[in-house]
Amino acid sequence: MKKTTLAFLVLPMLAGALAAATFKAHAQQAPKPEQLIKWRQSAYQVLAWNNGRIKAVVDGTYNREEAVKAANAIAAIANAGLGSLFAPGSETGKGWHDTTAKPTLWTEGAKAGELAGNFTREANELAKVAQHGDQAALKEQFGKLGKTCKGCHDEFRVAN
Amino acid sequence: MKKTTLAFLVLPMLAGALAAATFKAHAQQAPKPEQLIKWRQSAYQVLAWNNGRIKAVVDGTYNREEAVKAANAIAAIANAGLGSLFAPGSETGKGWHDTTAKPTLWTEGAKAGELAGNFTREANELAKVAQHGDQAALKEQFGKLGKTCKGCHDEFRVAN
Repeated sequence: MKKTTLAFLVLPMLAGALAAATFKAHAQQAPKPEQLIKWRQSAYQVLAWNNGRIKAVVDGTYNREEAVKAANAIAAIANAGLGSLFAPGSETGKGWHDTTAKPTLWTEGAKAGELAGNFTREANELAKVAQHGDQAALKEQFGKLGKTCKGCHDEFRVAN
Repeated sequence: MKKTTLAFLVLPMLAGALAAATFKAHAQQAPKPEQLIKWRQSAYQVLAWNNGRIKAVVDGTYNREEAVKAANAIAAIANAGLGSLFAPGSETGKGWHDTTAKPTLWTEGAKAGELAGNFTREANELAKVAQHGDQAALKEQFGKLGKTCKGCHDEFRVAN
């Protein structure tokens, strides 16, 4: 009887704690698709902002400090794990605007992973070249990075 | 006469080159206010995304790799020079939505600079603690960072 009584007391507590933990984990780990889409659209805007800054220093007056700031931002976003913002369930929906990702992004995981890996590799190289290279080296590496952007856009972004 | 002829040939070329260079520099260095506002709203969304990831690892299951990715993204954006996205002329306007910055942000430059400096300092510390500290240290530093976010929002963001 004592065991039974304890079970009546303890099991609901455990169940309650488990439910609370599950809810908490769920609340933290599974943002709504619209939130994910808004975040990824924002991340690409921040990439565009910093892309423009690099373009300005390779086509215009060279400024290493500006290049480093912009390249580090691009690299940190590339390394942040953008893939998590394309979680299953976020194939369609509206963030700031309707998603421009093609549905094939979710069915061709190996290809998507390869293209994302290319981007991250060249972004990390850009950060190194911004720090240690000159304007010509930065321009060349910026070109390589741009190809990885285009490669993924051509494959997985709706033309607009 | 020869000098005059040369001047007729060369001066318009110089003027044309100068005009082209000025146009190029202008096109690259002065994005429209609406573009700046969209970029800064995007940057804060990326901060919010990564803020949520840090919150998840300090309140839930600790994951150093996740913490490092998120903290590095926050630090890189803090160091990127967000101030340039608040250039004069962008006091009002619509990016993804109407700006929520108060007009005083542009008239109280010293205060804004101080608050931005606080944020950058604590964001850089967060990146260090994510890499080298434990969950408790990360939680403490995350609290310090949050205070700098709130400090600036209280001062310069329209309540919503």
